[in-house]
Amino acid sequence: MSEKKMVFFFGGGVAEGNVQMRDLLGGKGANLAEMTRIGVAVPSGFTICTEVCNEFFANDCHFPPNLTWRVKAALGQVEEVMGRRFGDPDNPLLVSVRSGARFSMPGMMDTVLNLGLNDQTVQGLILQSGNPRFAYDCYRRFVQMFGNVVLGIEHHHFEDLIEKAKHRLEKTEDSALAAEDWVALVEAFKARIRQKTGKEFPEDPWEQLWAVVGAVFNSWYKPSAVTYRRLNGISDRWGTAVNVQAMVFGNMGEDCATGVAFTRDPSTGENGIFGEYLSNAQGEDVVAGLRTPCQITLKGRQKSLSTLPSMEETFPKLYRDLVDTCHLLERHYRDMQDLEFTIQNGKLWLLQTRTGKRSAQAALTCAVSMVQEGLITREEALLRVDALSLDQLLHPTLDPVAREKSKRLAVGLPASPGAATGQVAFDADEAERLATQGLSVILFREETSPEDIHGMHAAKGIVTVRGGMTSHAAVVARGMGRPCVSGCGSIKPDMAAGLFSVEDPDHPVSGNRIVVKRGDWITIDGSTGEVLLGQVATRRAEMTGDFATFMAWADETRRMRVRTNADTPGDARIARAFGAEGIGLCRTEHMFFDQDRITPMREMILAMDETGRRRALDKLLPMQRIDFEGIFREMKGFPVTIRLLDPPLHEFIPHDLKGQADVAEVLGVSVEEVRRRVAELAEVNPMLGRRGCRLAITNPEIYEMQVRAVMESACHLVKEEGFAIIPEIMIPLVGYRTELALLRKQCVTVCEAVIAETGVTIPYWVGTMIELPRAALRAGQIAQEADFFSFGTNDLTQTTLGVSRDDAGELLKIYVEKGVLTRDPFVSLDQTGVGQLVEMAVKSGRAAKPGLKLGICGEHGGDPASIAFFEQVKLDYISCSPYRVPIARLAAAQAALLSAAARAKKKAKHAGKTKQRKGD
Amino acid sequence: MSEKKMVFFFGGGVAEGNVQMRDLLGGKGANLAEMTRIGVAVPSGFTICTEVCNEFFANDCHFPPNLTWRVKAALGQVEEVMGRRFGDPDNPLLVSVRSGARFSMPGMMDTVLNLGLNDQTVQGLILQSGNPRFAYDCYRRFVQMFGNVVLGIEHHHFEDLIEKAKHRLEKTEDSALAAEDWVALVEAFKARIRQKTGKEFPEDPWEQLWAVVGAVFNSWYKPSAVTYRRLNGISDRWGTAVNVQAMVFGNMGEDCATGVAFTRDPSTGENGIFGEYLSNAQGEDVVAGLRTPCQITLKGRQKSLSTLPSMEETFPKLYRDLVDTCHLLERHYRDMQDLEFTIQNGKLWLLQTRTGKRSAQAALTCAVSMVQEGLITREEALLRVDALSLDQLLHPTLDPVAREKSKRLAVGLPASPGAATGQVAFDADEAERLATQGLSVILFREETSPEDIHGMHAAKGIVTVRGGMTSHAAVVARGMGRPCVSGCGSIKPDMAAGLFSVEDPDHPVSGNRIVVKRGDWITIDGSTGEVLLGQVATRRAEMTGDFATFMAWADETRRMRVRTNADTPGDARIARAFGAEGIGLCRTEHMFFDQDRITPMREMILAMDETGRRRALDKLLPMQRIDFEGIFREMKGFPVTIRLLDPPLHEFIPHDLKGQADVAEVLGVSVEEVRRRVAELAEVNPMLGRRGCRLAITNPEIYEMQVRAVMESACHLVKEEGFAIIPEIMIPLVGYRTELALLRKQCVTVCEAVIAETGVTIPYWVGTMIELPRAALRAGQIAQEADFFSFGTNDLTQTTLGVSRDDAGELLKIYVEKGVLTRDPFVSLDQTGVGQLVEMAVKSGRAAKPGLKLGICGEHGGDPASIAFFEQVKLDYISCSPYRVPIARLAAAQAALLSAAARAKKKAKHAGKTKQRKGD
Repeated sequence: MSEKKMVFFFGGGVAEGNVQMRDLLGGKGANLAEMTRIGVAVPSGFTICTEVCNEFFANDCHFPPNLTWRVKAALGQVEEVMGRRFGDPDNPLLVSVRSGARFSMPGMMDTVLNLGLNDQTVQGLILQSGNPRFAYDCYRRFVQMFGNVVLGIEHHHFEDLIEKAKHRLEKTEDSALAAEDWVALVEAFKARIRQKTGKEFPEDPWEQLWAVVGAVFNSWYKPSAVTYRRLNGISDRWGTAVNVQAMVFGNMGEDCATGVAFTRDPSTGENGIFGEYLSNAQGEDVVAGLRTPCQITLKGRQKSLSTLPSMEETFPKLYRDLVDTCHLLERHYRDMQDLEFTIQNGKLWLLQTRTGKRSAQAALTCAVSMVQEGLITREEALLRVDALSLDQLLHPTLDPVAREKSKRLAVGLPASPGAATGQVAFDADEAERLATQGLSVILFREETSPEDIHGMHAAKGIVTVRGGMTSHAAVVARGMGRPCVSGCGSIKPDMAAGLFSVEDPDHPVSGNRIVVKRGDWITIDGSTGEVLLGQVATRRAEMTGDFATFMAWADETRRMRVRTNADTPGDARIARAFGAEGIGLCRTEHMFFDQDRITPMREMILAMDETGRRRALDKLLPMQRIDFEGIFREMKGFPVTIRLLDPPLHEFIPHDLKGQADVAEVLGVSVEEVRRRVAELAEVNPMLGRRGCRLAITNPEIYEMQVRAVMESACHLVKEEGFAIIPEIMIPLVGYRTELALLRKQCVTVCEAVIAETGVTIPYWVGTMIELPRAALRAGQIAQEADFFSFGTNDLTQTTLGVSRDDAGELLKIYVEKGVLTRDPFVSLDQTGVGQLVEMAVKSGRAAKPGLKLGICGEHGGDPASIAFFEQVKLDYISCSPYRVPIARLAAAQAALLSAAARAKKKAKHAGKTKQRKGD
Repeated sequence: MSEKKMVFFFGGGVAEGNVQMRDLLGGKGANLAEMTRIGVAVPSGFTICTEVCNEFFANDCHFPPNLTWRVKAALGQVEEVMGRRFGDPDNPLLVSVRSGARFSMPGMMDTVLNLGLNDQTVQGLILQSGNPRFAYDCYRRFVQMFGNVVLGIEHHHFEDLIEKAKHRLEKTEDSALAAEDWVALVEAFKARIRQKTGKEFPEDPWEQLWAVVGAVFNSWYKPSAVTYRRLNGISDRWGTAVNVQAMVFGNMGEDCATGVAFTRDPSTGENGIFGEYLSNAQGEDVVAGLRTPCQITLKGRQKSLSTLPSMEETFPKLYRDLVDTCHLLERHYRDMQDLEFTIQNGKLWLLQTRTGKRSAQAALTCAVSMVQEGLITREEALLRVDALSLDQLLHPTLDPVAREKSKRLAVGLPASPGAATGQVAFDADEAERLATQGLSVILFREETSPEDIHGMHAAKGIVTVRGGMTSHAAVVARGMGRPCVSGCGSIKPDMAAGLFSVEDPDHPVSGNRIVVKRGDWITIDGSTGEVLLGQVATRRAEMTGDFATFMAWADETRRMRVRTNADTPGDARIARAFGAEGIGLCRTEHMFFDQDRITPMREMILAMDETGRRRALDKLLPMQRIDFEGIFREMKGFPVTIRLLDPPLHEFIPHDLKGQADVAEVLGVSVEEVRRRVAELAEVNPMLGRRGCRLAITNPEIYEMQVRAVMESACHLVKEEGFAIIPEIMIPLVGYRTELALLRKQCVTVCEAVIAETGVTIPYWVGTMIELPRAALRAGQIAQEADFFSFGTNDLTQTTLGVSRDDAGELLKIYVEKGVLTRDPFVSLDQTGVGQLVEMAVKSGRAAKPGLKLGICGEHGGDPASIAFFEQVKLDYISCSPYRVPIARLAAAQAALLSAAARAKKKAKHAGKTKQRKGD
C-alpha cells in the first residue's frame, strides 16, 4: 500500500484524478479533479484517497508512514498554483477540509473552513483582504469549527460567548460586531477550548491539518454514519476520502457571492438554470437561512415573485460565466448537475458538482428532452429514471400547501400510494352504502378480510390499524389502485361505537385525544403513510406527452411481456390503459363475495353432499360466465390467465355469531349447522391449509364449474363476437405432479365437453402456479403436466421463509431496524433464497419441456429489483397490479438493457481470456 | 419377445427356472422350480412367465402367437414325468392353475383345481382312483371353480344346487352324497352355466386351460388387485405369472392328507415345525373350516390341548419326511419357510414354499437363533427384522382374548402404540388430579394443545376427536410413550357435560347411542386405533435376552449415532434404557407449563417493558437450571442438544375468557390488559409466526436467561459432580445467516460471562435447526455461524409442502386414498422434495465447514425409510422419541448395511466397466 498513490493533486487545469475514480477519491474528489481537467475554475487542492482511510483504521487510527511527505508535496503544488504559502504570515494559503465518500453520506463530518489561520497568518489574511473584520471573523469561525469537529466541543459553548459579547456591547446582530470584538472572541474561544480540553488551540497549521484529517476519518464510524450505511447497504470497508482545497471567499466583499444551482429545474425538468445565491456570504450562510437568498435567473425571480434582484440582473457577466459552465458540465457529464459555486472578487469558482437529484416528473422530462437534444441515447434515458418513482406520476397527490396547514393524526405504513379524502366508514357495507349515495368514503378497519372487498372497492381510500405493507388491505388496495395506510398502531379504534381516537400530536403531554367519528372527514396519503384530519385538497396525476414517449421507448426495449393482476373488467380496463399486455392473474375468489354470489357459495359450502354442492354451483355457473366474458372482452387479443378458486372455504363464512345467524336464516338451516361447519372448516394455519388444488382434489365439482364457465364464455365470445381467445387455466398450490395430473385430466374433460357442446373449437392452456418450495424443487416433474408456470412469489416467499405475510408486519420492521434484513422480502424478492428456488424451477421446468411458458404473478412483479432478477432467469412475462404496470414496463426495459450490458461485458472478458490463452 | 423364453418347465428333479427368477416366474413359480432342483417332491408342471402377461395386455388381451406350442411342449414334458396324458380318457393328466405374482397379492384369482376333467376323462379318474364318488366330486368342484373364475358366476348359484339336492335327498352333509348324486349335480352345474351365460361348459381340456390362463391374467386388473397394488406401491407393469401343475390329491382316501406348516413357530420363533393338516381332504377344506384340523407335531397337540391325533402320531414316516423336507428347505433358503403339502396315497408332495410371515417376536428370535445355528450371518439377521415391528415389543399390548370379548366403541388413528386402560377425564387438570390420587386415567379431548401437556403426562393414554397421525396429541403422546388414539371422528363429545357418545356399533340402525361419562372405564389400543368400553386386560412388554443380543449387533453395525428427543429427566432415563446415545432435541417450552412456571412465564409475556420481562425471567432462571441439571445427570457422558424457546408466546396465555380472568387475578392486572395482549399476540398463521429465533431477536432477554441456565447448570455439575458436559445450544427457526450471527454472538457473550463467573471452563456448541426451506437453501452461509445443524424435518415438511400438520389429517388421508400421495409425508420423509433440500443443505453446509455436525430431530428420525435416506446423505446422528430409539438403532444398522452393499455393487460395476474398457 505504501507504494500506492495516496494523494491526488488537482489545480491549474491539471488533475491526477478523474471522474472514473469515484471509489478511490469519493464522489466530491473525483468531480473536483474532473472539473479541473475540463477547464472549469476550481480552487486548487488535493484528495487523500479512501484507501488511506482503510489503512488508518487497519493501523489502529494512525496515518500510514509515507502520507506526510506526500501531503506536503501536494500542498506544495497547491501553493504553487495559488501563489500563497501554507502558514506564511504574510501571504498565507488557507484551506478547506471536506470528507467525500463514494456516495454522499449524512452523519459524517462535513467541512472545516479557513484552516491555516493562527495569530500570525490572520495578519496575512488582513493584508490579502484589506479587511480586519473579515479576517477575524474567518479566524473565529475556524477556531469554532475546529473546536467542534476535532475536539467535540458543542457549538452552543461558542455561541454563548458571542451572545454574551453582544449583550455586553449592546449589539443584537453579529454583523454589528467590529474587528476588535472578533479579536476578543477568538481569545475567548481559545480560552473555552483550554478550559474544556486542558489543551491549547494548536497554532501550528500542520498540526491543525492532521488533526482535521484524522477527525474526518474518525467520523466514518460515527454512530449516525454507521446506521446510515447499514440502512443503505453501504459497506464499512468503502471508507471516506478527504479533500483539502485552497479557500476562496464569497464573503470578502460586495463583489463576492456564494450559491447553489441545478442545470435544470429539479421539480419539473425544465431546461435552464435553477438556483439561489447570496452576495457577500459564505456557503453556510445560505444554509443557515438568516438572509433570504436571491434567485439566479430572472425567470426564477419572476416565478417565485421575489423582490430581490437576480444574479442575472446583478452580475450579468458572472451569470453568463455560470451559464457557460453549466452547459460545459452538462455536455461533459451528460446529465443534469447540482453545483456549488463561490464568487471571490468577481471571479467564479466551482466548489462541487454532482448529478442533480430530481422529482420523478423532472427525471422523465430531463430524460426525454436530453434524448431530443442529442445529449444521451434512448437507452441511457431509460436507465436515468427510477422505475419506482413513476408511481408518483400515476396517483393523485396532496396539495403541498394544504398538507402543511392540516392536522396530522397518525403515520402508518405507506401501503398503497396516492392521496384520498373522504368521510370515515367503519364497515364495508356502510362504505358501500355511502358510496352509492355519491359520497367519498375512507374505509377504516382494524384489519381487512376478503369480506371487506366490496367496501374497499367502494371507498376512496383505506386505513387499517394492523397489518404490514403486504397485509390483505395493502395488497388488495394496491391491486385496486386505492390509496391505503396500513398498520396505524397509534389509532385506538372503538368499532362498536363507530369511532377512533388518537393522542393529540400537538399536545402529547396533555393526554388530550382527538376523536374521529363515523362520517367525519379525513384525508390519507398512501405514499407517505399520513392520516390527516379533515378535507385536504388533492391534485390529479397528469400523463404528459413525455410520459407516453418515454414508455414507448421502454416497450421497444424490453424482452419480457408485462401483464396485470386483475379480477374485474374495471381493473382490466385500467390496466390496459396503463399498457398491460394481458392478465397474468385473474383471481376468481373475489367474484364470490358479491351479495348475489355469496349466498349460493355458502349454500355450496354448507351442502351435505356432492349433489347439494352441485346444485349450488349450478347457480354460480352463469354468474361466473358473465365475469369471464367481461374480462375477455376488455382483454381482446391478449392472453388471460384465470386462477381457479384458491382460498380455504372458511373465508366465505362469517366468523361472528350474528353473521352466522344471518347465514342460517338465508339458507334455511339451523345456526348449529352453520357453526358446526365453521368449526369443521376452521384451520390453525389457513395459509398451509385446505386451499388451492387441495380443495379441488377433495371437491372436484368446484373447479369443474369454474372451468366450464371459462370455456363456455370463451366459446360463446369466439362464436358471437369473433375474436380469438386462448384461456389459460391456472391451478394453484400444486406441490406434487400427481395433483396436477389428476386436475389437468379433469380440466381437459370439461373443456372438451364444452367444445363438443358448443361446436366451437378453441385452444386452451392448463398450467399451474409455482408457489410452494416443493413445486419449485419438483418443477421438472410438474412441467410434464403443465403448459405454463406462473411463479406465485407471495406464497413462495411465505413458505420458503416460513413467514406469514398477515402476521409479519412488525417483525419485518424490527428485522430491518436491526440489520437482519435489508429489505422486506414481500416487497423485493429474496433473490438468494426464494430466487434460488425460482431459478431451479425455471431450469428444470424448461429442461423438461422446452416450450414451457414462464411468468410471475406475485407482488414482486411490480418491483424493479425483482424484475431485474426475473430478466436474468429469463421469464417470459411479469404480471403486477394495474397501477404498477408502467413501473414494470420501465423496469423490464432497464433489466433488458443491464442484462445485455452484462452479457456484452462477459463476452468481452471471455474474448480477452481467449486471446490471452492463445497468446500463452 | 416371441424369441424369448415364455414357459418354464419343472419336474422329475429338473427345472428351467430357479429362485432368482422371481420377477419372471412370480414367487410361487420360482420356488416350485427351486424345490424341484433341490430334490423336493413337487408335482411336475410349468410356469407361464410375467412377460407373457404384459404382452397379453399390450396385445389387447390376446396371447402371444408362439405361446401355444410352447405350452403344449411343456405340458408334454409334464405328461412324460407324470406318466399321464392331458385329455386322455383312460389315464388323464389333471392340472391345477394358479396365479403367482412377484409378491403375494390378495384380490387376484387364486386357484382352479382338477382342470382337464370332462365327461370322458372323469372315467379315467375313476380308473386311476377306483373311486367314482371322489372322481365326480372332483369334477363338480372343477365345473364350479371354472364357472366362478372364468365365467363370473357367483358361488351361491352352485351351492344352492347342492343344498337343493341335499334337501331332495334328505341329506344334511356333503359327505353323505353318493357318486350318482354328484353326477347329477355336475349336469345341474353345467345347466346353470348354460342358463347364466348362454354357452356350454367347455368339454375340451385345452379350451379349459386357455380360458383359465386368460382369467388369471385378467384378474391382474381386478379392482381389488389394482387397489392393493396402489396401496402397496406395486407397479402395474410387473404382471403375474401362471403356474400349471399336475394335480395330486389329498382327498383320494385315508392314506391322503393335506396341510400347511411353518418350519418354526411364527408367533414365538421357536425352532420346530408348527402347523396343521387334515387327512383325506383338499387344501380348500382346511381353509373352509368345516372340519377341525389336527396338529402336525405331538408337542403342538399338547400345547393346543387338542384331542385329535397329530401327524407325528398318525403318519410317523410321512412326518419324518416332512421334518426332513423342512430342514432341507430351511438350510437351502436360509430362512423360516411357510409351506403347503399334500399326501397322496402315502407320498408327500410339496405344493408351495415361501418365506414365512412371523410376529415381531418370532422374527427377532428366528434371526438370533439362526445366527447361533450358523445358518445366517449377523448382517443377514439384522436385515431380517422389520425395524418398525420392534414397536410391538416395546409397548404393553391388549390381551387378545379379553379384546375379543370387549365392546368396541370407535376406531380412530393408531397415533401412539400400546394399550392402556383407565377412567375417562375430560380435561388436563382433572386428569392430573385423578392421577395424583393413584387412579388410571384416559384423557379425552377434542384435540390437545400445549396447555394439556401435564394432563397427557398424568394420563395412561389419550383419545382425541380431531387430529391426524402427526397432530399435537399424536406427536406428544409418542414422545412420552403414552398410547394415543387420535382423530376418532365418530365420537360426539359434550365437553361441557363431561361425556361423549357413540352410535352403538352392534345396533347401528336402532340409533341407540352408548354414552361414556367422566370416570367411566375405557381401554384404548394405540397400535390399532381401537377404543373399547370398560377395562380390558393388558400384557406388559418383555425384553428377552435375544432382544439385547440383537440390538448389540445393530449397534456394532450402524454408522449413525442414535439420540432421543426428551424434555424431562424421566424421558431421558427411558431413552437411555432403550439405548439412546444422547439427546438430539430437548424442547424447553414444555418446561414452562407446570403450575409454578406458567405464572412467571405469563408475567414475562404481559410485562410492559424489558425490565418487567427480566424480572419475570429471573424467577424462571433457577427453575430452568434445575431442569437442565436433571437432564445432564441422566445423560452423563452423552451430548445434550437444548433447543431454546420455540413456540409463539400466545401459546402460553389461555384463550378462553375464564382462563384470562384467572391470569389477570393471579398477576394482578386487569382482564382488559390480558385480553389486549392476547389480541396483540394473536396470529393468523402461528406456524409461520413470531416464534423461534424471531422471538429472540425481538426479545433477547428470553434466550439470555435460557443460555445462562444451561451454562450455569453445566458448570455447576462439572464442578460439583465432575463429569464432562458439552452443552449444544440450538437456535430454532433460523432462515438468515444474519439471524444466527446476531444470536450466536449474544449466546457466546452469556456463555463466556458464566464461565468467568463460575471459574469453570467448559466447551459449548452453538448450532441451529434447519427447518425452513430458506435455511436449507442458504445452508452454506448459515454454516459459517453454526457448530452444528439439526434438521427439523417436521417444520421443514410443513413449509416445503405448504401443509399445516395440525390441519392436514383428513386431507392427507384423502390424498393417499386418491393415489396422489403414497405415504403421509409427516410419517415418512418426502425424499424427492424435502429430502432434496436436506441433501442440498448437507452438501453446502459441509462444503462451507468440513467439521459441521449434522443430525435430524424431526419425527422422521424414528422412521426406517427416512433413516435409510439419512444414511445415504451421511448425517452424523438421528434423534427420535424414546420409544422409537430401538427402531432407529436397528434401522440405522440396516441402512448402513444396505448402503455398504450398494457401494460394493457400484464399485463392482465400476470395476467391471474398467475391465471392459481395458478389454476394448
